[in-house]
Amino acid sequence: MAAPFPIAWLDGGYLPLAEARISPLDRGFLFGDGVYEVVPVHRGRPFRLRQHLARLDRSCDEIRLARPLTHEGWADVVEGLVRRAGAAEQLVYLQVTRGAEAGRNHLFPPAGTPPTLFAFTAPYPPPSPETLEKGLAAVTLEDIRWARCDIKSVALLGNVLLRQQAQDRGASEALLLRDGQLMEGSSSTVFVVTRGIIATPPNGSHILPGTSRDAIVELAKDWRPLEVRPIAATELATCDEVWIASAGRAVLPVTRIDGRPVGDGKPGPAWQAMSARLHRHLDEIAGTPALAP
Amino acid sequence: MAAPFPIAWLDGGYLPLAEARISPLDRGFLFGDGVYEVVPVHRGRPFRLRQHLARLDRSCDEIRLARPLTHEGWADVVEGLVRRAGAAEQLVYLQVTRGAEAGRNHLFPPAGTPPTLFAFTAPYPPPSPETLEKGLAAVTLEDIRWARCDIKSVALLGNVLLRQQAQDRGASEALLLRDGQLMEGSSSTVFVVTRGIIATPPNGSHILPGTSRDAIVELAKDWRPLEVRPIAATELATCDEVWIASAGRAVLPVTRIDGRPVGDGKPGPAWQAMSARLHRHLDEIAGTPALAP
Repeated sequence: MAAPFPIAWLDGGYLPLAEARISPLDRGFLFGDGVYEVVPVHRGRPFRLRQHLARLDRSCDEIRLARPLTHEGWADVVEGLVRRAGAAEQLVYLQVTRGAEAGRNHLFPPAGTPPTLFAFTAPYPPPSPETLEKGLAAVTLEDIRWARCDIKSVALLGNVLLRQQAQDRGASEALLLRDGQLMEGSSSTVFVVTRGIIATPPNGSHILPGTSRDAIVELAKDWRPLEVRPIAATELATCDEVWIASAGRAVLPVTRIDGRPVGDGKPGPAWQAMSARLHRHLDEIAGTPALAP
Repeated sequence: MAAPFPIAWLDGGYLPLAEARISPLDRGFLFGDGVYEVVPVHRGRPFRLRQHLARLDRSCDEIRLARPLTHEGWADVVEGLVRRAGAAEQLVYLQVTRGAEAGRNHLFPPAGTPPTLFAFTAPYPPPSPETLEKGLAAVTLEDIRWARCDIKSVALLGNVLLRQQAQDRGASEALLLRDGQLMEGSSSTVFVVTRGIIATPPNGSHILPGTSRDAIVELAKDWRPLEVRPIAATELATCDEVWIASAGRAVLPVTRIDGRPVGDGKPGPAWQAMSARLHRHLDEIAGTPALAP
């Protein structure tokens, strides 16, 4: 029971993450044939778990993998991990793959082949004081990924290569462009702010429906104007603020893009207000049931 | 030593494939962050091993993963597997991933993180007499994969979904189209034959450079005209023959596409001649050193 943090859950049992083992015939390893979620935990309470699980269901549906657990079943797994780890701030990872056969074959395995269910929790890495004070650098890159980025699949090699390319240029995120339009970050949703109006691109087959994005859209209601609309790459040069949002980074300001400052080059007031609003919301819901809306 | 067939080789040791285990933190499992090769073995001799290893090197280079073994090192692994398995006809699988860290992070792991090296060999499945007599059915589908299909990566979810979609429509392969142009199959190269002239699309970022394709191109030299040129999807309706070629299927005739016959709907004379030529070539080189050109 007292497994050291990070702790894993694999095919029904809890164990130290370092001891977890799977077959290399797993279709996750051979084909990237699986889907996943990352759920932030604040004060021991998973954030928007219902929404993460709904997206996991949708990802399963889209790759035609039977949903392996109910929301209550997944919530038990998440709570089991969070309780064993004990830390207040955690990041829980959930993955489902199409399981393993005795060999390798592109086609779906025979009906009844059990999926592989894997989860683990690790410490939530808070942003550095420097990031909060100065903001992040980003670069724009052509989006080389597939046509179904709305599926949160583990076939992430494109995302990995783009993120590393950003890092090599001294940046923390790659902002991805298709046909001159801004899509999303390599592992985040993007927002721009122009004259007080927040905007983010509409969901579609090239964009993952963001759970942190949805939280921000909801928190803007009755407070600030927020538009969901296509964003041209050229707007990145003229807007006042750019933010990225994800489970692992909440919402963070991007203050340099392709080596040039965004707005005045400092984290902006709209970001500061939205970040405060998000963290207040997180504090408010701490202690409520994980699957509460 | 007498491991049952299929046999695996994992991080330096041989073992029964069913007993092989890796960490779910492997970047192959979490990110599809790896590359692979499939090498056919005829009469105990790997076919075009040098070319497969050169392509593996190229795939490693393109995803910026240090080449883990020399060609001689890989040849030892392949020969070790083939010898232990003993069967005359085998299909050897090689995979390299960027290894595992203690957690999950899109960025490349620290320098010195060992890659995961995995290989196994399994029986080569010969085509059924029915396939040779009647040919295969295929369907055309829009290519939803990423912009770097020239890299033989394990992030194959797109290929899996396309291949399964073909199967669900009673077909054995999906022929992939981009902007009305024929690219390749979900796991094969495509050839068309019109009035005796063989044609195949040029390599590019949307097409994997095929080793079986190259063998066919070489075998056509001084024998039949073969053009490497863009092929419009509309040609599939007017050509006399369509073939697919891959390590696992050698060269096979496609006789029905989207429910309509190709040419007269039977395996054509050019395919029969090329298939015979390929198998004669395979017989001729049996017994020569694996890394001979």
